[in-house]
Amino acid sequence: MTTQVIVLNGGSSAGKTGITRCLQAVLPHPWLTFGVDTLIQAMPASMRTSAAGIEFTPDGGVSVGSEFRTLEAAWIEGISTMARAGARVIVDEVFLGGAASQERWQKGLGDLHTLWVGVRCDSAVAAGREVARGDRVTGMAVSQADVVHRGVLYDLEVDTTHAEPMECARAIAAQVR
Amino acid sequence: MTTQVIVLNGGSSAGKTGITRCLQAVLPHPWLTFGVDTLIQAMPASMRTSAAGIEFTPDGGVSVGSEFRTLEAAWIEGISTMARAGARVIVDEVFLGGAASQERWQKGLGDLHTLWVGVRCDSAVAAGREVARGDRVTGMAVSQADVVHRGVLYDLEVDTTHAEPMECARAIAAQVR
Amino acid sequence: MTTQVIVLNGGSSAGKTGITRCLQAVLPHPWLTFGVDTLIQAMPASMRTSAAGIEFTPDGGVSVGSEFRTLEAAWIEGISTMARAGARVIVDEVFLGGAASQERWQKGLGDLHTLWVGVRCDSAVAAGREVARGDRVTGMAVSQADVVHRGVLYDLEVDTTHAEPMECARAIAAQVR
Amino acid sequence: MTTQVIVLNGGSSAGKTGITRCLQAVLPHPWLTFGVDTLIQAMPASMRTSAAGIEFTPDGGVSVGSEFRTLEAAWIEGISTMARAGARVIVDEVFLGGAASQERWQKGLGDLHTLWVGVRCDSAVAAGREVARGDRVTGMAVSQADVVHRGVLYDLEVDTTHAEPMECARAIAAQVR
Repeated sequence: MTTQVIVLNGGSSAGKTGITRCLQAVLPHPWLTFGVDTLIQAMPASMRTSAAGIEFTPDGGVSVGSEFRTLEAAWIEGISTMARAGARVIVDEVFLGGAASQERWQKGLGDLHTLWVGVRCDSAVAAGREVARGDRVTGMAVSQADVVHRGVLYDLEVDTTHAEPMECARAIAAQVR
Repeated sequence: MTTQVIVLNGGSSAGKTGITRCLQAVLPHPWLTFGVDTLIQAMPASMRTSAAGIEFTPDGGVSVGSEFRTLEAAWIEGISTMARAGARVIVDEVFLGGAASQERWQKGLGDLHTLWVGVRCDSAVAAGREVARGDRVTGMAVSQADVVHRGVLYDLEVDTTHAEPMECARAIAAQVR
Repeated sequence: MTTQVIVLNGGSSAGKTGITRCLQAVLPHPWLTFGVDTLIQAMPASMRTSAAGIEFTPDGGVSVGSEFRTLEAAWIEGISTMARAGARVIVDEVFLGGAASQERWQKGLGDLHTLWVGVRCDSAVAAGREVARGDRVTGMAVSQADVVHRGVLYDLEVDTTHAEPMECARAIAAQVR
Repeated sequence: MTTQVIVLNGGSSAGKTGITRCLQAVLPHPWLTFGVDTLIQAMPASMRTSAAGIEFTPDGGVSVGSEFRTLEAAWIEGISTMARAGARVIVDEVFLGGAASQERWQKGLGDLHTLWVGVRCDSAVAAGREVARGDRVTGMAVSQADVVHRGVLYDLEVDTTHAEPMECARAIAAQVR
């Protein structure tokens, strides 16, 4: 029952990407990492500002339209195929729709052995880190901190409020078979 | 016979990425773009400096090892699945192995309707643009300019030596069904 | 009469930064490069979205407020001091105010031996390159192409519409004493 | 006795840049931030790989040559001029030479009212964050953690081992007059 996919879900500035890089460093085999940011970068620039694509509002809100959903469905199938073809894959996600988002991935991943990890962070701490990073719309950390976990089921949860990315990565790695 | 995949192949600094962004802007539907750079970024940092992964030598050479090839094979299957699932995909590639690289993609893409595009650029001009970009190891442009096209078959070739990215994109878009 | 400062002025996507990197590569001594982008990055994030700072409108317009002007004046004095202290400096600028912008720099640079270079590009070509770059608000290239040159006096002008960055750099380097 | 300059000194991955962005957000006036990274980016690419410039060794070492020192001296004078001209300036530095590096800045800043801040971080924690960031040569965090503080005198020290960037920024802001 070798783990084939690790899905990390958490709000913006919760620290998922840092944990992911640490995981890639501590896991014994090479793992590929893909996230919703990879998908957004792959889309036409016009999709990042249209109602049918993905829109970032000045206060940190994010809304996703029908064309985004269509491409995302194909993306999930493709990532699942990579894992079935033997590539170990870490998915770095923001489940804006909570349980509904998880279902989309569960459906695509099917019977792949998947480790579901929740990455939590106190919203005030995440908001401070968002300012420290300086590359994000202010407000995303707070608006996403709780909503992305609604109804989502995990094998493991980590909390970056007081734990370093490397500590969280080691805790996750210990659950990878 | 709708085009499902566009593969752009050319050496470093030949201008593939610029053409890709213009293509995404002029094509009537949304297209996703993935390239070998997407795959390299998805790999662990350690793969970027090991003989089993991918190595960039100070003079612009690139060598690829067995672990890289294993992950690349899964990557190609995954991208092909995305196209089969309905996402239009532009692949931005550097066929370091010439015809052998094309075969790997042909095998993965199977019967998907694919437009094969060669992106050429005079090597001295590409070398100047490599300096102007400032973010690449100097020497890649020259060392890759010809070798990536050896034995590769195209539906269409564009040359960025004297043509703008947008002109090249329009020429390619005219061949997309 | 050794040249101490080179000022490049041109609109967004005219190709100034590429020329600058080529200039640094072909000039026999090390030159430092600073631009208005260096200043903007040095400012608080809040200055990039406030009327007192600098605002980028969705259609490519840029407006600059009083606090920006105050910091810019100190910036110009500091850059001039670096040149007086012996550092050769290339300034990569966008004279949104045309002649008035040049006067601000002339006042700061004083008697430093300065080479004033205009970087022109056909606005349709620059607009295409803006799309190809993918990292700029669309519309800046067109809205700035002519206005930045109004009333500005140059020692030398280059046009990137048909010339490569390296060619332009060599033409400029030939005028550096 | 208004504070005119804040100098933050600490090793790589100690968290200086994050603190700087938080400082810019919490301080009531706009402050400009410049660091040794700004200077390195301003230099020709060739200076980043030559013995006369700055060299980064694969194990995280950094060595600085004579041409780098010459340009740095002019840089320090220029930054000091900006502060004298009324711009509030935060300097984000890595004192590789410890006390000798501080002396270079003390000499340039002269009688400007300067707040000297040491940014410390446990070297094992900084090493983990270096992996999490993924954009630095591994080893710099450990090799710089202590050496940059040798003989340096501070008005205030913060430690990011257990404190968030925003907390550190608030502690520093409380000392700014």
